[in-house]
Amino acid sequence: MLQIKPMLLLAAGGSNQHGKILLTLFVMFVAAKLLAELFERLRQPAVAGEILAGVIIGPSVLNLVQPNELTNTLAEIGVILLLFLVGLETKPADIFRVGGRALLVGLLGVILPFIAGWALMKLWGRSGIEAIFVGAAMVATSVGITARVLGQMGVLNAEASRIILGAAVIDDVLGLIVLSVVSSLAGGGAVNYTEILTTTGLAIGFTVLIAVVGAKAVNKIQPQVSRLRVGQAQLVFGLSLCLGLALVASYIGVAAIIGAFMAGMAQSEAVEGTDMPPQAEAVTEFLLPFFLTNIGMQLNVQIFQSKEVVLLAIVILVVAVLTKVIGCGLGALPLGAKQALQVGVGMIPRGEVGIVIAQIGLGLAAVSNETYGVVLIMAVGTTLIAPPLLAQLFKDEPKDEHKRIYPLTPIS
Amino acid sequence: MLQIKPMLLLAAGGSNQHGKILLTLFVMFVAAKLLAELFERLRQPAVAGEILAGVIIGPSVLNLVQPNELTNTLAEIGVILLLFLVGLETKPADIFRVGGRALLVGLLGVILPFIAGWALMKLWGRSGIEAIFVGAAMVATSVGITARVLGQMGVLNAEASRIILGAAVIDDVLGLIVLSVVSSLAGGGAVNYTEILTTTGLAIGFTVLIAVVGAKAVNKIQPQVSRLRVGQAQLVFGLSLCLGLALVASYIGVAAIIGAFMAGMAQSEAVEGTDMPPQAEAVTEFLLPFFLTNIGMQLNVQIFQSKEVVLLAIVILVVAVLTKVIGCGLGALPLGAKQALQVGVGMIPRGEVGIVIAQIGLGLAAVSNETYGVVLIMAVGTTLIAPPLLAQLFKDEPKDEHKRIYPLTPIS
Repeated sequence: MLQIKPMLLLAAGGSNQHGKILLTLFVMFVAAKLLAELFERLRQPAVAGEILAGVIIGPSVLNLVQPNELTNTLAEIGVILLLFLVGLETKPADIFRVGGRALLVGLLGVILPFIAGWALMKLWGRSGIEAIFVGAAMVATSVGITARVLGQMGVLNAEASRIILGAAVIDDVLGLIVLSVVSSLAGGGAVNYTEILTTTGLAIGFTVLIAVVGAKAVNKIQPQVSRLRVGQAQLVFGLSLCLGLALVASYIGVAAIIGAFMAGMAQSEAVEGTDMPPQAEAVTEFLLPFFLTNIGMQLNVQIFQSKEVVLLAIVILVVAVLTKVIGCGLGALPLGAKQALQVGVGMIPRGEVGIVIAQIGLGLAAVSNETYGVVLIMAVGTTLIAPPLLAQLFKDEPKDEHKRIYPLTPIS
Repeated sequence: MLQIKPMLLLAAGGSNQHGKILLTLFVMFVAAKLLAELFERLRQPAVAGEILAGVIIGPSVLNLVQPNELTNTLAEIGVILLLFLVGLETKPADIFRVGGRALLVGLLGVILPFIAGWALMKLWGRSGIEAIFVGAAMVATSVGITARVLGQMGVLNAEASRIILGAAVIDDVLGLIVLSVVSSLAGGGAVNYTEILTTTGLAIGFTVLIAVVGAKAVNKIQPQVSRLRVGQAQLVFGLSLCLGLALVASYIGVAAIIGAFMAGMAQSEAVEGTDMPPQAEAVTEFLLPFFLTNIGMQLNVQIFQSKEVVLLAIVILVVAVLTKVIGCGLGALPLGAKQALQVGVGMIPRGEVGIVIAQIGLGLAAVSNETYGVVLIMAVGTTLIAPPLLAQLFKDEPKDEHKRIYPLTPIS
């Protein structure tokens, strides 16, 4: 009996593995949506519910699913699609108009967390290299969480929202520079300035190029797109450009989501009023829960056995929140206290990039297992803290009913 | 320089691996859609173009991508969503009405290919066990290909289409029985009748249960679904049910796509006229190309070095086509020659199930590497042959403009 059963499963699902994969998909999707529903009923942002669902089904609590290559890939596709969708709602001119402000916000929001994280770890008696890694891990904002909350609230067109999106692009380029310096230091060698300058130049060149000529190029070939015979040509073209620019961004060294955001922004004028944005929304709706739950699944609270580490995690989390609020807030202060706070809170979430930096440090033995756990707490904690604060801070902004992402979602 | 670069990529894309994954996704999606466009312009079915794209980018020609766990998983999700979508367009009553006919079509369409495949291999001088495996691999119709062609043409409501869908469900249950017999024979043991009866009973029970009470249950809870607060509640509920029944089907031993089809059919009445079917279409549009290209990518023509194997592959391919056309066609003959031919041709495509059966045989050393290659040729070849024939045979059927899947696709 036991000999046949696996074979039947093998044949049925394609492989025994497929049964497990389907189980993972089902658990992640359904848990995310159950908690999202609960949070909506409690008038809390669904995003926080979906991340919490990941904590619950993951290694920390029920251990039903563990993050693996597949969940990480689905998560990556999910957040790429989300940023593409946010780009579709964002005109390049909207971002250019806030460019100077976003630059300052991005800069201060990178410098403060890095210095504070480094100094805190040094004061805590850790090695210089570990302190540098923790500082670096505290730098990169994970804009997906904020974008999802603002999109669901229909306030992506608020000025603070645009500054956050612009600053997220700059934050990413700056984070790339910090990372390349840190990596070469940790590698034991001297800092390779040529390499860093080349990478930075490429990253800036790519971003500026697509921002400046992307929309024009897309508008120019739009008549050809609408003459395509292939099914749902506009969606197919959009997704191709999204995957293509995400790929280029990833090869250059910028986050793939920045490429996806640029691809969306380049098409925002061409697709206005067509069926394509709602179609892209539907695709995102299916894949985004895997991104959100996968964040929560990264956490494994069982690694915390000493009170000192728990204390460090709490302190780092508080510092991570405050340094972004103060740093980014300072950059936006000339716009008034309220907008400064909106921008600062919008930049709080860290996510996969911070985790990956800590993983690199772990791999180089520059970061201890416990410190890696502390960074995880920081990443997951900031993504859980930001959504309710954002919901509160943006609740009086005028809602853009026509263009809001996920139009069926009532938040408020 | 070389030390830093991978780290930057690592941080940027989440991991160096992610760059590779994005490349795979981009190449598969764009190649599929370029060939689909070309085939549409040549007035050929896009489906065949997308499978051919997989042959071209795969190991046989350019070797840009290779099938792996990730592409297999995306393929599985893609075809699950397709069958869910087809289910959404199919009322349970439509299938019940043709049930008796579908049963006969399914039965004859399993018996003929099995006997012919077995006899041919015996005549070719192969071992009895290898002959049984090849026969079994020729049994299971891969209904996804046909469903996609008929959906794109807007003829899913034709009687022949419904018979094909019903017969595909029966074909799958019968295929399961054949496989369990073959597996226990190949395992060296006696045939375990208890096990086979249990599995068969479960499979039939699940299918009949969902077919009979699924729609009623969904209609009953529909008011609750429309009161959900979570974003895009109808789509979220639909996808949850789809993943859930696919999972149950897979655990019972039926193909996951059968569960997805039943989930779609159960909801077909409840969602009629809502936004949900077009949303499900958009999700499918993104993921289905991975299923179609992944079929073509299975092929590696470089394993064919002897003329005898090439000849065997051609003969098996011809027999695989003829036995389904004749077997299934005979079952549908009382409806007239034209419908019999439509049904027979619609059942031609074999796919992943045949390949998996051959893989089991390969693993048990019951099937040689060359014979495995022959089965691959049979599977990919039948999926390429059926679409143009179907387009020809269904071109005069009245198109259901309102409900056609992929409404923007002009075929014919």
